[in-house]
Amino acid sequence: MTTLPDCRTLALLENGSVLHITLNRPDSRNAMSLEMVRELTAVFDRLAADRNVRAVVLRGSGGHFCAGGDIRDMAAARSQKTTNGEDPFRDLNRAFGRLIQQVNEAPQIVIALLEGAVMGGGLGLACVSDVAIAGQNARFAMPETRLGIIPAQIAPFVVERIGLTQTRRLALLGLKVDGREAQRLGIVHQVVADGNALDVALEDALDSLIRCAPQATASTKALLHKVGKVAMTTLLDEAAQQFADAVRGEEGTEGTLAFMQKRPPAWATEDNT
Amino acid sequence: MTTLPDCRTLALLENGSVLHITLNRPDSRNAMSLEMVRELTAVFDRLAADRNVRAVVLRGSGGHFCAGGDIRDMAAARSQKTTNGEDPFRDLNRAFGRLIQQVNEAPQIVIALLEGAVMGGGLGLACVSDVAIAGQNARFAMPETRLGIIPAQIAPFVVERIGLTQTRRLALLGLKVDGREAQRLGIVHQVVADGNALDVALEDALDSLIRCAPQATASTKALLHKVGKVAMTTLLDEAAQQFADAVRGEEGTEGTLAFMQKRPPAWATEDNT
Amino acid sequence: MTTLPDCRTLALLENGSVLHITLNRPDSRNAMSLEMVRELTAVFDRLAADRNVRAVVLRGSGGHFCAGGDIRDMAAARSQKTTNGEDPFRDLNRAFGRLIQQVNEAPQIVIALLEGAVMGGGLGLACVSDVAIAGQNARFAMPETRLGIIPAQIAPFVVERIGLTQTRRLALLGLKVDGREAQRLGIVHQVVADGNALDVALEDALDSLIRCAPQATASTKALLHKVGKVAMTTLLDEAAQQFADAVRGEEGTEGTLAFMQKRPPAWATEDNT
Repeated sequence: MTTLPDCRTLALLENGSVLHITLNRPDSRNAMSLEMVRELTAVFDRLAADRNVRAVVLRGSGGHFCAGGDIRDMAAARSQKTTNGEDPFRDLNRAFGRLIQQVNEAPQIVIALLEGAVMGGGLGLACVSDVAIAGQNARFAMPETRLGIIPAQIAPFVVERIGLTQTRRLALLGLKVDGREAQRLGIVHQVVADGNALDVALEDALDSLIRCAPQATASTKALLHKVGKVAMTTLLDEAAQQFADAVRGEEGTEGTLAFMQKRPPAWATEDNT
Repeated sequence: MTTLPDCRTLALLENGSVLHITLNRPDSRNAMSLEMVRELTAVFDRLAADRNVRAVVLRGSGGHFCAGGDIRDMAAARSQKTTNGEDPFRDLNRAFGRLIQQVNEAPQIVIALLEGAVMGGGLGLACVSDVAIAGQNARFAMPETRLGIIPAQIAPFVVERIGLTQTRRLALLGLKVDGREAQRLGIVHQVVADGNALDVALEDALDSLIRCAPQATASTKALLHKVGKVAMTTLLDEAAQQFADAVRGEEGTEGTLAFMQKRPPAWATEDNT
Repeated sequence: MTTLPDCRTLALLENGSVLHITLNRPDSRNAMSLEMVRELTAVFDRLAADRNVRAVVLRGSGGHFCAGGDIRDMAAARSQKTTNGEDPFRDLNRAFGRLIQQVNEAPQIVIALLEGAVMGGGLGLACVSDVAIAGQNARFAMPETRLGIIPAQIAPFVVERIGLTQTRRLALLGLKVDGREAQRLGIVHQVVADGNALDVALEDALDSLIRCAPQATASTKALLHKVGKVAMTTLLDEAAQQFADAVRGEEGTEGTLAFMQKRPPAWATEDNT
């Protein structure tokens, strides 16, 4: 892929078409600092136009995914002046929300491996993954209201993830749920034993993913995101043209040929392990 | 709180910051009469500007939540003239729907304890609660089409509650489901044994609630209701400003201080039992 | 009902107020050919204004529901010229999507009995049924991206059926799930043993259906489809008028009378077995 930015809060590892991103501030349970937001934003900026990377794997170091916002950034924002319409708290908060929106619509498949604390901003990030796999002892919560503040950039994505009904109880009581409950609520797709079982489940997901054509997968993901935002008839009209383009394109031609020749298509033969 | 209205169909009990509302027409399984609609509307009108009441607990007397609309009101409407564009059936029906909209967006946390019949209008009311706890033998249904009429002010809130997919089967076959199935479908959050178990579950919910800052909780609830109705970017922009205001406000200041001093914040120490 | 069209790819059977439609190309696992799309469209065109048919039962012959699009139609489209803005691939694809939209909003209750392959277009059709009953060994998937193409007219209805969260994993990994998992995800309402158990479950659904007034049921279905597309207050205003019309109409009058006379209403006494 294109050169990756240097990062202090993230460990990055490319392996074939898979980019592994590890939130790497274990001393603070990978709290989402402003620096981490900036570095993740920079990485996803590079990924936006990159089709060589087909999957992004997000996880945390030290047994936790992400414990939420960083208290030192909050303290720093409190000491800053608010001038010329700039508000350090608002800007700090909104920057995180923009990152969530960016990850949500990344053309790659985003896989989240969730252990330990998945709180506040960590929950927001988990809620925009395409495949979310949780260890059974992971703990999910929006604890903001217990601190007198609001999960402003997080709760809307929880509603998009699991609907208003479940979100209202979870957010308004500030509840903490484990991996199994998170699956029942629809936050995660899969729950496994902790530790090595997460890596086994990841391999399964990557094995499935590699068999799907990269451009067709990215187009499908973009299509899914438009449902409910564009009138259905308009959406289907556009999608029919995309279908025609896909059939005639490189992937559609290779896919049809491979099917007739009873062989795997070119995109499925890459060794991504 | 401000003085509560006198009610004939409701039993009202204030206990600290919790208002207990009991639908109290046990002879008709708490059928939702026009008088009951008016009295509930009056109570929620008073609650709209009241932050001393943090939770509203809704339940029914005599082992039932609410069996639906009242047949005598229907008969009375049938005998009334339709003049000057007024239609007693339409107005009766719409008044109930307005109540449902009002309860849905009340700034308090609304907890519904559901036993026995939760039918028609009773189901509508249950579907706008923030926390719905059902006894396992409760029975949920929209029986309207079996009477040749339609669940006009109810079905839309069932769709918002559990989605189109489950609602279409439930409404179009006129099915009756029990507490466990209601939980599986997402109508309720929790199912427990009947009787005393409902009160135990209520205490748990109130214990969680009391730890969350009242204004932050009300702001979060209002935010959740805007998802899907306002463009996501607009919503997040507004929410970032609300976040900044919350951090600097009374609750945010107290919450941060309490966290640093390792003590519970002021709002969590109220005795609400 | 009105005369049914002659069909080569469908077996049609009227039984009282129930129309049984069997996708009948068992040699290709009932692949959704262009001819089948046209014949289904013609049948649902006739049904649009027909209130004598109250339920439509969709199933496949030979142990499969529908394995997806037809490869021969694709090959034929590839050999056609693209002139005057006409694109055979686009038109082929869009015609299927229009059928799905039509089935989704048919005034009848659509019951799908799902066995064996429920893939691609077959999944799309299943996702717009009012009652979906699956055999436990049925297999559901959107395999399009594995062929280098996209589930253009299908994925949007899967999102409407089960939400973005579950659809993104299912579509983007090209996963295959069985009947039980399809129920957990919300694709189907009910899972039973294969074979005769499907017919037993169908009888149960028809027994419930027959007790619901036909016009009230059709009005309720239309109402459900408007939620989220029309502002809630507008929707409830319209629905209140529909309620008033229903109460005063033939069904509302008969339903009220039957209730008071403790007898089943006229619409419930038809023998539909």
